[in-house]
Amino acid sequence: MIDIQSMKDERGIEIQRVGVKDVHLPFQIRMKNGGYQHVQGNVTLSVSLPHQFKGTHLSRFMELLMVWSEKPISGKEIRQLLTELCSNLEVAAADISLKFRYFLPLAAPVSQTIGYLDYLGEFSGSLRQSDNLFDYRLGVEIPVLSLCPCSKEISQYGAHNQRAIIRSSVKFKYPGKILWLEELVEILQTQGSCPVYPVLKRDDEKFVTETAYQNPKFVEDILRDSVLALRSEPRIECFQVEVESFESIHNHNAFASHVESLP
Amino acid sequence: MIDIQSMKDERGIEIQRVGVKDVHLPFQIRMKNGGYQHVQGNVTLSVSLPHQFKGTHLSRFMELLMVWSEKPISGKEIRQLLTELCSNLEVAAADISLKFRYFLPLAAPVSQTIGYLDYLGEFSGSLRQSDNLFDYRLGVEIPVLSLCPCSKEISQYGAHNQRAIIRSSVKFKYPGKILWLEELVEILQTQGSCPVYPVLKRDDEKFVTETAYQNPKFVEDILRDSVLALRSEPRIECFQVEVESFESIHNHNAFASHVESLP
Amino acid sequence: MIDIQSMKDERGIEIQRVGVKDVHLPFQIRMKNGGYQHVQGNVTLSVSLPHQFKGTHLSRFMELLMVWSEKPISGKEIRQLLTELCSNLEVAAADISLKFRYFLPLAAPVSQTIGYLDYLGEFSGSLRQSDNLFDYRLGVEIPVLSLCPCSKEISQYGAHNQRAIIRSSVKFKYPGKILWLEELVEILQTQGSCPVYPVLKRDDEKFVTETAYQNPKFVEDILRDSVLALRSEPRIECFQVEVESFESIHNHNAFASHVESLP
Amino acid sequence: MIDIQSMKDERGIEIQRVGVKDVHLPFQIRMKNGGYQHVQGNVTLSVSLPHQFKGTHLSRFMELLMVWSEKPISGKEIRQLLTELCSNLEVAAADISLKFRYFLPLAAPVSQTIGYLDYLGEFSGSLRQSDNLFDYRLGVEIPVLSLCPCSKEISQYGAHNQRAIIRSSVKFKYPGKILWLEELVEILQTQGSCPVYPVLKRDDEKFVTETAYQNPKFVEDILRDSVLALRSEPRIECFQVEVESFESIHNHNAFASHVESLP
Repeated sequence: MIDIQSMKDERGIEIQRVGVKDVHLPFQIRMKNGGYQHVQGNVTLSVSLPHQFKGTHLSRFMELLMVWSEKPISGKEIRQLLTELCSNLEVAAADISLKFRYFLPLAAPVSQTIGYLDYLGEFSGSLRQSDNLFDYRLGVEIPVLSLCPCSKEISQYGAHNQRAIIRSSVKFKYPGKILWLEELVEILQTQGSCPVYPVLKRDDEKFVTETAYQNPKFVEDILRDSVLALRSEPRIECFQVEVESFESIHNHNAFASHVESLP
Repeated sequence: MIDIQSMKDERGIEIQRVGVKDVHLPFQIRMKNGGYQHVQGNVTLSVSLPHQFKGTHLSRFMELLMVWSEKPISGKEIRQLLTELCSNLEVAAADISLKFRYFLPLAAPVSQTIGYLDYLGEFSGSLRQSDNLFDYRLGVEIPVLSLCPCSKEISQYGAHNQRAIIRSSVKFKYPGKILWLEELVEILQTQGSCPVYPVLKRDDEKFVTETAYQNPKFVEDILRDSVLALRSEPRIECFQVEVESFESIHNHNAFASHVESLP
Repeated sequence: MIDIQSMKDERGIEIQRVGVKDVHLPFQIRMKNGGYQHVQGNVTLSVSLPHQFKGTHLSRFMELLMVWSEKPISGKEIRQLLTELCSNLEVAAADISLKFRYFLPLAAPVSQTIGYLDYLGEFSGSLRQSDNLFDYRLGVEIPVLSLCPCSKEISQYGAHNQRAIIRSSVKFKYPGKILWLEELVEILQTQGSCPVYPVLKRDDEKFVTETAYQNPKFVEDILRDSVLALRSEPRIECFQVEVESFESIHNHNAFASHVESLP
Repeated sequence: MIDIQSMKDERGIEIQRVGVKDVHLPFQIRMKNGGYQHVQGNVTLSVSLPHQFKGTHLSRFMELLMVWSEKPISGKEIRQLLTELCSNLEVAAADISLKFRYFLPLAAPVSQTIGYLDYLGEFSGSLRQSDNLFDYRLGVEIPVLSLCPCSKEISQYGAHNQRAIIRSSVKFKYPGKILWLEELVEILQTQGSCPVYPVLKRDDEKFVTETAYQNPKFVEDILRDSVLALRSEPRIECFQVEVESFESIHNHNAFASHVESLP
């Protein structure tokens, strides 16, 4: 049967990325404690396409993903997955983004009631075999509570507060200096006015309310404190971070963002 | 050219609804003040299909929508649109949902600074020509502020609060007893701990913060107060209402909902 | 510490539903083959609230969900979960919707290459203890391929085709007449012009292309064939079904829907 | 009243972007034909924040947007809006993204029936006053039809096809070398196997079906042809382009993307 994809293309354009998108598959994410977590992944996977070929073979992307869907992965395996894809398709570069919702136990601050809180995680990898470059980034989205310092200061009582999200993506110093998703969550989760929790009994709710009131932060404050925390982690080479606050007094959001390479 | 849609179907099934969905078109919504507002509509439009026909003619749905996209509409015109669709397609029943984002001016409570706040609106109509029935509903989603009474009571200072949404859909007593979207917004917008505003200067922010603190409400309270407000409007025959609060201390939401026919 | 929620309410309104929404938690779904599948659930869980109480205790909803997050569930356990919730909160009625993405192996039609295809599943339960009523529904969304009979007939070659979704929710005849999600998928997956597949080699792609071309179906056809298939399943008491086709020649969709109670 | 935002910050971090996000407001977009179109905008607007200030004044962002919501804008006015924001807030840099759904008339290919097709548009501007830099980009998303060359070649009859999206963002050669959104649509809309249309009568449907069949294109082909078309437009300095195809035979998508600076 004729292989149209392998036919010669005359337009002279090497395509930077061609592949599959919005692929839903289960994955097993390696955890810091040694086990792994079943997650529902959303994958974008692509390769570069030399100018002489008309198309790539997308079924091979899916076959490879089916294999990797069934064994534990972390940042290390992401490189291996991309290496295999380059080999299968005889191309020099490949990229992946694997997004998933991740669950970690979190104890309520007073009652110590345990529940699972959900975070969005992302493994992003970019392999360039010609110069042996592998760029890997770990991404996370963490819900926190933000309480407005201005509202607190100018009001006789109370202060508006709301759920906010800290989004961050970090690149690590090579080689082997990699943070676990659990560690990135730990670094950033305390940068809001107070963390949010899956289960709060009344004693806990009192604690969270009072903690946030004593710790008012603009999105600017949460961003700057996140920047300081990320700077102080020696394994990080560069990072981006954004804080978005779903303002309770408006129907729009406030946000602040920052990108930085560490010396 | 052969008309496949008009061919005879032998399965004996009268289809309740067949039509188009997720049609994006501009519309002109009649306003209470006599003018109209340009909105971006999202339309679902369908007809019933007698058992003997294989299919309907979807291009006629789109041709009709193009015409109605260019003239002002309100609940009254919705009936006319459905009547024309039934006539064009020689069917006995038709349904529409027209959703859009609607903007109304709202003055800040102290500075009186004017801004536009956005609400989601929906016109839903269902026409059954055989028994001359026309069911029409007006829907709206209104952002408000909710402040937790429990958090306020048990804490030494502060109280968690957050954006919440009041969603409602109402049916009117026939004939001619119709509320404007502006009126439905007015009825429900004050049922939270405080309204939200597009622009707030510092004096306004103080006012909103203190007003909400003095007016704590669970989703249950906002729901019950909304029910009382809707019951007291003589033009309403039945309603459904839901309040969803994007809890600032959690990564999930609280909600309450209720459906009621008035005597 | 004072329990604000348990305070007396004077408005005289019994709330039909109050609870939590958009709760993300892992769940274990029982499979037809005897095992279970780890999924990422999205839960709405509510109770009725008697008129004399100001509020419900949402932390108990979350504590209960944490427990159920860790053991295999199917329709049977949904009733038990709701019974426990009613008991914990001393209320008479409770409702749940648990939505999740579900994966089933599917072999390509010629090469027999196995991959996992994703479906959306939903367990919906409604318990009314006063009259011992339990209404349970199983929902599913199945991607299929639809090829337009009109386009095929009027064109010299080719025919437009596209991805479509069959959405269905079914209620079962009591007692114990329950379908597995796998069985509902099997009933509906063949009602399009052809199923869709996670992995297709070239021989498979030829097969799928030709099969769809030989089996053209409007959304009306897919709907009617789905209705016939659901009617013929003796365990089903009533059903709703919708087909939505993401028309390749338009930027909007075609759809058909139907609700039916079986004798 | 104390101005908390203007207080001194000691962390020494200049924030790159702080502002408002997900602001929904009506806007008036200048059209090529000299008039303007009412659209529903979604705005992200931010400024840089010098290290010595604790926060910015978000109410001024909203006041400025309210003013600009009421007069016609195009790329030229975007610069003016950002200049005013920098001036109001005494900062040196500002960024905006204004996204909206845009409607253009499109005649069916045979019957010439006119309808409005919807496109997503985006105006992105970045102003750096210190070095007098203004980076402006025009973005668009255009639905097209893609028909698979492999499927056509290997099958006896038919070929799978589907809706696809061409997404592009272009930067112009300064000064004054600006394309209208209408022109960018015109350049890219013909790069698929066939355009999609809002209204198609039977003669048109035959035309579209046959045209696509005679013009099979992988996402790679649509991407390369889009690259060639963008390269040939002398007003463009650099561009990015992505094609995403909602594969009718799968439940995932194919895509290709490319970024290029022109000499």
